[in-house]
Amino acid sequence: MCPHANGDALPNGTSEMVPVDLANASTSHSSSVRTNGVNGHANGHVNGVNGAAKKPEQRQNPYAPRASDFLSNVCNFKIIESTLREGEQFANAFFDTKTKIAIAKALDAFGVEYIELTSPAASEQSRSDCEAICKLGLKAKILTHIRCHMDDARIAVETGVDGVDVVIGTSSFLREFSHGKDMAYITKTAIEVIEFVKSKGIEVRFSSEDSFRSDLVDLLSIYQTVDKIGVNRVGIADTVGCANPRQVYDLVRTLRGVVGCDIEIHLHNDTGMAIANAYTALEAGATHIDTSVLGIGERVGITPLGGLVACLYAADPEYVKSKYNLPMLREIENLVAEAVEVNIPFMNPITGYCAFTHKAGIHAKAILNNPSTYEILKPEDFGLTRYVSIGHRLTGWNAVKSRVEQLGLTLTDEEIKDATAKIKELADVRTQSMDDVDSLLRVYHSGIQSGELAVGQKEALDRLLRKHREGTMDSRDASISRPTSPAPVAA
Amino acid sequence: MCPHANGDALPNGTSEMVPVDLANASTSHSSSVRTNGVNGHANGHVNGVNGAAKKPEQRQNPYAPRASDFLSNVCNFKIIESTLREGEQFANAFFDTKTKIAIAKALDAFGVEYIELTSPAASEQSRSDCEAICKLGLKAKILTHIRCHMDDARIAVETGVDGVDVVIGTSSFLREFSHGKDMAYITKTAIEVIEFVKSKGIEVRFSSEDSFRSDLVDLLSIYQTVDKIGVNRVGIADTVGCANPRQVYDLVRTLRGVVGCDIEIHLHNDTGMAIANAYTALEAGATHIDTSVLGIGERVGITPLGGLVACLYAADPEYVKSKYNLPMLREIENLVAEAVEVNIPFMNPITGYCAFTHKAGIHAKAILNNPSTYEILKPEDFGLTRYVSIGHRLTGWNAVKSRVEQLGLTLTDEEIKDATAKIKELADVRTQSMDDVDSLLRVYHSGIQSGELAVGQKEALDRLLRKHREGTMDSRDASISRPTSPAPVAA
Repeated sequence: MCPHANGDALPNGTSEMVPVDLANASTSHSSSVRTNGVNGHANGHVNGVNGAAKKPEQRQNPYAPRASDFLSNVCNFKIIESTLREGEQFANAFFDTKTKIAIAKALDAFGVEYIELTSPAASEQSRSDCEAICKLGLKAKILTHIRCHMDDARIAVETGVDGVDVVIGTSSFLREFSHGKDMAYITKTAIEVIEFVKSKGIEVRFSSEDSFRSDLVDLLSIYQTVDKIGVNRVGIADTVGCANPRQVYDLVRTLRGVVGCDIEIHLHNDTGMAIANAYTALEAGATHIDTSVLGIGERVGITPLGGLVACLYAADPEYVKSKYNLPMLREIENLVAEAVEVNIPFMNPITGYCAFTHKAGIHAKAILNNPSTYEILKPEDFGLTRYVSIGHRLTGWNAVKSRVEQLGLTLTDEEIKDATAKIKELADVRTQSMDDVDSLLRVYHSGIQSGELAVGQKEALDRLLRKHREGTMDSRDASISRPTSPAPVAA
Repeated sequence: MCPHANGDALPNGTSEMVPVDLANASTSHSSSVRTNGVNGHANGHVNGVNGAAKKPEQRQNPYAPRASDFLSNVCNFKIIESTLREGEQFANAFFDTKTKIAIAKALDAFGVEYIELTSPAASEQSRSDCEAICKLGLKAKILTHIRCHMDDARIAVETGVDGVDVVIGTSSFLREFSHGKDMAYITKTAIEVIEFVKSKGIEVRFSSEDSFRSDLVDLLSIYQTVDKIGVNRVGIADTVGCANPRQVYDLVRTLRGVVGCDIEIHLHNDTGMAIANAYTALEAGATHIDTSVLGIGERVGITPLGGLVACLYAADPEYVKSKYNLPMLREIENLVAEAVEVNIPFMNPITGYCAFTHKAGIHAKAILNNPSTYEILKPEDFGLTRYVSIGHRLTGWNAVKSRVEQLGLTLTDEEIKDATAKIKELADVRTQSMDDVDSLLRVYHSGIQSGELAVGQKEALDRLLRKHREGTMDSRDASISRPTSPAPVAA
């Protein structure tokens, strides 16, 4: 179900990285956790480091949902993927029909449960694209997103969608400055639209907009009303992207006590909290999360698909792996990034430039002993590779030792520490590429072998390195006059 | 204190955006909120939309901390800026002395309370750079970050720093696979190092590493011990970046009941929750938050300075504005992005490519009426500008009307709606640049003026547009044969 293809997480030019052997890494990665950790106390019993966990099979993962969270849907949720609706509202987005179909197919192959499309009322092309995607025969259910208006609803139900997502602003801000309707009118229209969509035998969701600035009693009242007439889902939206996790938890949990239908949440990311808010909504009983690829949408967008998958994987890797084709994530992100002409953010969860690159000596040492020390997300589950960066002044001798072994060289720990000191010294001037580091280690090794070098002989090492550089220079085109290694300084 | 320089939030080529008049926007932005919103209920009284809020001066902001959160430090915190320590562990980072000094000065001018530097034990250059930064006479306190070891502590206290941040791994993972020490040894060493640093009359912090996978009793025990001997701060670290907000809240709140000293939190961002976790830590009583510019650090890094500022600004804009020089944020991010050769992520809070760009017709309409409808963060407080994008198929006639007025044209609402339909039709084929939109509106306007055009006359409009394009073509270099507007299709 989850092919573990080995991809290459990094672009060219980062040649000072040590790709870690995944076969070995996997083995050590699976070593079991010995302690319940901090979160164990929520279960009522804290196990000491050396004490046996009482229910090790349930408590191995300190990031798993807590038994006390009986409302939690962290291991029981559906994704409503809105790249083709919210994503189209991203300033850079212009999806032609071909691109929309490619994105829809990729999302379907990844395994999202729902794909949401722009309203067919938005433009003629939007309508025909919606119809075309409905005809693809995807496994994912197709939704379209409309204003709470009968005109839009009549167009939507004719497209062949599996469901209609209806939205209207309920905050005083939107009621005053956007549509100008009062709650009585909103409720009346909502009932009319919901009953009409239901009469067509397809799913219907009713969502407020700007829910966190709406009056709580108004909100609960309209949700209760639409729940009673059989809406499939109600939606909460943090339209301005400023809610915080405890606000989200409280509102979803309150709503969970009021309605029996599913609860969807749509979270903008203006303050960078959309992933955490989505996670917390699931803890409080939400059932459906809206995402878009890379989070694209209005302004800085919404909960990104990759980030949501990352945090849910941390909570329950097996569940997430069983639902989604994780190694496809990078491909989907690249597809969308290209379509909207943006770069994958360097700090993107999972697929970011250096998401699995370890640098500080203390980190590198532990990672080489056991990847779980500094990684909860296993790169191989996403078709990616772990790197340990060593050509810099924060490096440590354990990471260098790993590279020495990869090069098939034989050096004692004392010799490796001595070579590491030289790497740090050179890296204080400029970052050393992997070629630089490899050359130094080879020169060090041959110096030891030939008896020209011993631990602590700094001048001898400098002499050997100079000689090596001159030899390398001689063997190259004389017109190239760069003084040191030709490897790009990409770190 | 906060100069409101008007910058330009967008690169060249996004010419279809309407820059919104900030003078007007400011006025409408300041209109007060009429409802307590959803979060009002935490206070025990929900005010209806038309009812007067009982304490309007305290409850105007639905994102403000709740009165029930007596532990909350959301309006009383300090930033420990670690770009020059954690940030140096980012794979791409190599800061020379000049760059370090530039970053330190910029952070100081921004107003961060602490600047944390790489351990002087890491390399010779690290030590001399630390000394150099201590001599700059900055307002911010200078810290350095060391392993819990007397060798490192002796070097650190000689550099001139205002404080030393001590760290050691306490999880079973790190104790087994990293340093191999038991809790008794860790405690003994911690006491020795803390007492030594204190004896030099400077601040000292003790932090665990991988705190969320550490045994709770071990953790609380060592924190209590170091608190008793007078440590200034204890630190919690989510070293693997997989904690979630409620875990953070619970641990910080528990610790708040155990120690009297300050509480610092250091949060990695592997699952994209580091900003939300930082916010929640403050709600639970943490006092100090670690950040780095753009979040740079090991793997995908830690809580980003800009994101943290964004969510704290949403909670209490006046407090955040009084502490930090917000319009400097973009400059600092550009400085660091250039130094480590990354792009500002397009979805970065505040400074992202389109953070203040509004696209969907329904959003654009409301934003033009009152920016608070879809914005909590005021762009002008960050020296940035709001844009409304109009040349796409999701556009609405209210946004087009705003552009018509900016161009000084006179059209009736019916005429504007008619012109908008044409924009949507053209944008269904390809995104229209601002030049395209402006041309269309001018042609439409002159057609109406001359009597050649009336509402609904599609053929007449097409003929006028064709004539305009031909005229434009004739006036250009004949060798250029592009069929339509020369404006770049950058949206």
